[in-house]
Amino acid sequence: MSIKPTLHTCLSPALLHLYDLNDAVVVVIDVFRATSTIAAALYNGAEVVVPVDTVAKAIQISKDINGIAAGERDGKIAEGLQYGNSPMEYTRDFIGGRKLVLTTTNGTKLLYMALENGVADIVTGSFPNLSAVCDYLLQQNKNVVLACAGWKDRFNMEDTLFAGAVIHQVSNAFTIHCDSSATAAHLYNQMKNDLIGNAQSFTHYHRLVERFGLIEDIRFCLTPDAANVLPVYENGVLKKL
Amino acid sequence: MSIKPTLHTCLSPALLHLYDLNDAVVVVIDVFRATSTIAAALYNGAEVVVPVDTVAKAIQISKDINGIAAGERDGKIAEGLQYGNSPMEYTRDFIGGRKLVLTTTNGTKLLYMALENGVADIVTGSFPNLSAVCDYLLQQNKNVVLACAGWKDRFNMEDTLFAGAVIHQVSNAFTIHCDSSATAAHLYNQMKNDLIGNAQSFTHYHRLVERFGLIEDIRFCLTPDAANVLPVYENGVLKKL
Repeated sequence: MSIKPTLHTCLSPALLHLYDLNDAVVVVIDVFRATSTIAAALYNGAEVVVPVDTVAKAIQISKDINGIAAGERDGKIAEGLQYGNSPMEYTRDFIGGRKLVLTTTNGTKLLYMALENGVADIVTGSFPNLSAVCDYLLQQNKNVVLACAGWKDRFNMEDTLFAGAVIHQVSNAFTIHCDSSATAAHLYNQMKNDLIGNAQSFTHYHRLVERFGLIEDIRFCLTPDAANVLPVYENGVLKKL
Repeated sequence: MSIKPTLHTCLSPALLHLYDLNDAVVVVIDVFRATSTIAAALYNGAEVVVPVDTVAKAIQISKDINGIAAGERDGKIAEGLQYGNSPMEYTRDFIGGRKLVLTTTNGTKLLYMALENGVADIVTGSFPNLSAVCDYLLQQNKNVVLACAGWKDRFNMEDTLFAGAVIHQVSNAFTIHCDSSATAAHLYNQMKNDLIGNAQSFTHYHRLVERFGLIEDIRFCLTPDAANVLPVYENGVLKKL
């Protein structure tokens, strides 16, 4: 019997230090909306997505590399930027062949935390690229940490639900002994037949839909394989595998 | 229409700083086993339970007040102590009229964190005192934080499940806009008809039952109202309300 690699789910960036990230694949998950937007942009032909942690860096780097500076703070387009964190903005016409420099409240912050912890193998995941993430995890045969971005370090439902969707597909290939993963799987099993209907009870849904009217964003972010590419982080940028 | 107080669930001590604890009731939850043991000891007539954060303090204070020093590290009776963290140890014959000085891996640590945050109103909860906790929360009409002790800052199922049991009873009296609370409620609804059967999948179950044979402890810790008193923290000690 071969020993299976482990899989853990980390429910908040503030808990990331509890997990052994050495030689692991870390899946950064920010369903509403950074990692959905990253999948959309790369699926629609963006050459790279450069995740950065501040608006100032987004502006500077976009100038340096002739890219598009974009980002979000508290759910809105960040002050000083023209483009935001909606997957709907990054159509093939607009983003094809271009470079996107993106900064967001939760997702890019978590990615930087993984980098600071020396993780070599970082990918990003959300429902639009669910199968691509699962295929990759099954191929790598390495330990996995599903890292939920949450909202300002708080637990959120949608990222945990995506972890559950991944576990649903890959659990046979991993040793899973982790109450967070069990919870993610429970939630996904309970909600999988109507993700969008269930989303109406999520705190983030209220933030995005009631305050900003972003129902199309929500639908896209919860649609499996709508932009089924695998963003892999290497040398400071996310590229399609 | 009167404004209802808020209720939040904090899934790990490492997330406690995210919640506003001012003027709130904080319910410290460590189902396996500190807060179950505290309920058992007070139910069985212990005069007070003194929660302390180190074994050395447990020994010193128990000498000072002629109490019983007890505690647990990593699921076992802590080195240097004679009594542990099992609710089964604290029968009426043994603990009636006596003072218990208790130190545990997770529960007492979380209680100290709440104290450092200046919380004035701390109670402890677990299934054996579920109704007493709910009655108190309904009477107080204050904001509530259900604070799960977890396991070394990791999320665990049993503490979250107890939060869900409380929410199940009190939700009508509170404004609940918190994905952690929604998750707790989902888990409880899914598992409530067979808590002990479901517990077999919890990581902590394996730690306690497979390593230490503590199935009786598990049963007690998951039995609603088996020791239905309310431990309230005041002036350094937990007393029955």
